[in-house]
Amino acid sequence: MVRLKTNVGEFTSKISIVSKTIPSKTIKPIMACILFDISHDGTFLHATDLETGVKARMESEADGEGKFAVDAKTVYEIVRTLPNEEEVLLEFSSNLMTLECGRSKFRLPTMDPGDFPEISLTTEGNTLMLDAKTINDMIERVTFCAAKDEFMRNLNGVFWEIGNGFLRLVASDGFRLALSEERLNAQSESSFLISLKSMKELQSIVESCLDSEITIRYDGKRLSLNTKDIETVMRVVEIDFPDYRKVLPKAFKSKVVLPRDEISEALKRTMVIAKRGSESVRLEISEDTLILSSRSPDYGEVNEEIPIKKEGEDITIAFNPLFLLEAMRHVHTEEVELNFVDSTSPLQINPLNVEGYLYIIMPIRIV
Amino acid sequence: MVRLKTNVGEFTSKISIVSKTIPSKTIKPIMACILFDISHDGTFLHATDLETGVKARMESEADGEGKFAVDAKTVYEIVRTLPNEEEVLLEFSSNLMTLECGRSKFRLPTMDPGDFPEISLTTEGNTLMLDAKTINDMIERVTFCAAKDEFMRNLNGVFWEIGNGFLRLVASDGFRLALSEERLNAQSESSFLISLKSMKELQSIVESCLDSEITIRYDGKRLSLNTKDIETVMRVVEIDFPDYRKVLPKAFKSKVVLPRDEISEALKRTMVIAKRGSESVRLEISEDTLILSSRSPDYGEVNEEIPIKKEGEDITIAFNPLFLLEAMRHVHTEEVELNFVDSTSPLQINPLNVEGYLYIIMPIRIV
Repeated sequence: MVRLKTNVGEFTSKISIVSKTIPSKTIKPIMACILFDISHDGTFLHATDLETGVKARMESEADGEGKFAVDAKTVYEIVRTLPNEEEVLLEFSSNLMTLECGRSKFRLPTMDPGDFPEISLTTEGNTLMLDAKTINDMIERVTFCAAKDEFMRNLNGVFWEIGNGFLRLVASDGFRLALSEERLNAQSESSFLISLKSMKELQSIVESCLDSEITIRYDGKRLSLNTKDIETVMRVVEIDFPDYRKVLPKAFKSKVVLPRDEISEALKRTMVIAKRGSESVRLEISEDTLILSSRSPDYGEVNEEIPIKKEGEDITIAFNPLFLLEAMRHVHTEEVELNFVDSTSPLQINPLNVEGYLYIIMPIRIV
Repeated sequence: MVRLKTNVGEFTSKISIVSKTIPSKTIKPIMACILFDISHDGTFLHATDLETGVKARMESEADGEGKFAVDAKTVYEIVRTLPNEEEVLLEFSSNLMTLECGRSKFRLPTMDPGDFPEISLTTEGNTLMLDAKTINDMIERVTFCAAKDEFMRNLNGVFWEIGNGFLRLVASDGFRLALSEERLNAQSESSFLISLKSMKELQSIVESCLDSEITIRYDGKRLSLNTKDIETVMRVVEIDFPDYRKVLPKAFKSKVVLPRDEISEALKRTMVIAKRGSESVRLEISEDTLILSSRSPDYGEVNEEIPIKKEGEDITIAFNPLFLLEAMRHVHTEEVELNFVDSTSPLQINPLNVEGYLYIIMPIRIV
């Protein structure tokens, strides 16, 4: 019999973090479990989907040692309904976990911990340190651009590139590309692709510890992110990401600066018509005005005027309005820069006077 | 050419109210339209699904007279994206509506208003007055109990009963029943069934004008609800609602009083196990304790203890925990009364010391 005492807040927080790794459908019941690993080193919760593994330290008073596997979803749903700030008492025997909290008592079956898949954490490889807030922003600004289709393996993920004193994340679905970068102290050079699925798990872990410093480690096959309490390790995808540098425009012929909120709001209105028609928005840029327009054969048309600051040539070009709007959601400055080459070349969007974020979008041919 | 000037707030509010009546799929495009009816009497927006009709007065400055039908969903989506507090200019010609707001301009096709289905509003019948807040509470407390299945026509709605100085609303799905009533000055007597679909439309209209007085009128075939700005009329369902009085328990053998929040929280925890097993929760009531328990063959069991005040006999009985929880969501007192006959008879739940609301629930047989 192993006894464990913790509080609802800590228990809920750690169960939530590790549960996110567990897939909603599993082939074997043991794969749907959280492993409680209780020893003199502390109490750890493990979960894995065989591609990503998470290990979280849970603050607790333990009496005894042992490993116990319990259905994750059931435990997760239970902890979410427990009264906050209360104490939780757990008792494990060979095939039963009891959970007591206030006047609630649960008895849950446990599974053979021997069947639980081993997660080996990386202890070797190049390391670099970043604060969670920074890495979270970087992830958030690129991940939405990755291809959703799992069969497009080389685009269904985020490309990590460490080198020249930078960490750079890049994602693309073939129609647009987002790139975020951050200066680093590390001298190492490496690059690898992390699947979109792993990125989402990673993001939810990073979001849960925004005040922490994160140690990032890459050993050639696996990427790990460690905080004080939580270790995550994930396999990299063994496939080449396309050479994104080829897509980055070199020289621009016009540059437009305009308020981000105004173009966002105008795009939302344009989309009411665009989604009932060609799914495209036309941009006409002249001296000090951008005109957005869209047309639907059955539902009418829309025209939006936005005052702009412009350098360079006039241009008329068309885009998928959703792709423009999503760019605006990820630029965090009040003013945004649109850099055009010509009406058939990619547009580069970036925050005004802030380094470290680029968004490239392919135009739609104007018929 | 007819011109109309209004502001975004008023336009959005009235378009939102009438749009809710329009079904998401319609056979003819004209059925998906809002009719703008502009005359010396004012500007009115009409919408109907042939069962319910809504007419809303829109504050505006009009120049000219005419009727124009415009696709409701498109207009609704446009007004929601317009900048608040701005002026809106509408211009109607025979087949085009232009909408100008700030630097946005929309051109939308209009349809032949002659094809728009006539909505005749009731001007006869018995009337009664209630404030919107009261009728909203009454609707909210019973509607969730109505059968969702449209083929159970006699239960797929809310039964209205006016008589003996009361308005009473009743809904049931055959497993439970909710009844709310309010004292009235009216002397009239009538009863009729309103479909769940119409009730939901009615509810969204009532919610949009909670500060108003509502005039309710019934002419034998149709029910209308009128406020200063909005008139709604709906057909009653021509079928008999079952005699609900037969279900109301007459004499009780035990009465339990307990805090609503405690039983709600305990039920939520119980449901984690119950939904993985028999979908039932067992209640064991003894001297000063209620024990809730549930069991799942694969996922374990749960026990919850709640201190209670009891009068009368001990009892053991089982229910669908969701049906109990939904009752608690609609009782608005801190303490709730459970009135039992025996383990095979319906339980009556009501707020403690507050008249006007009853919830009856059938037990599940304990094997």
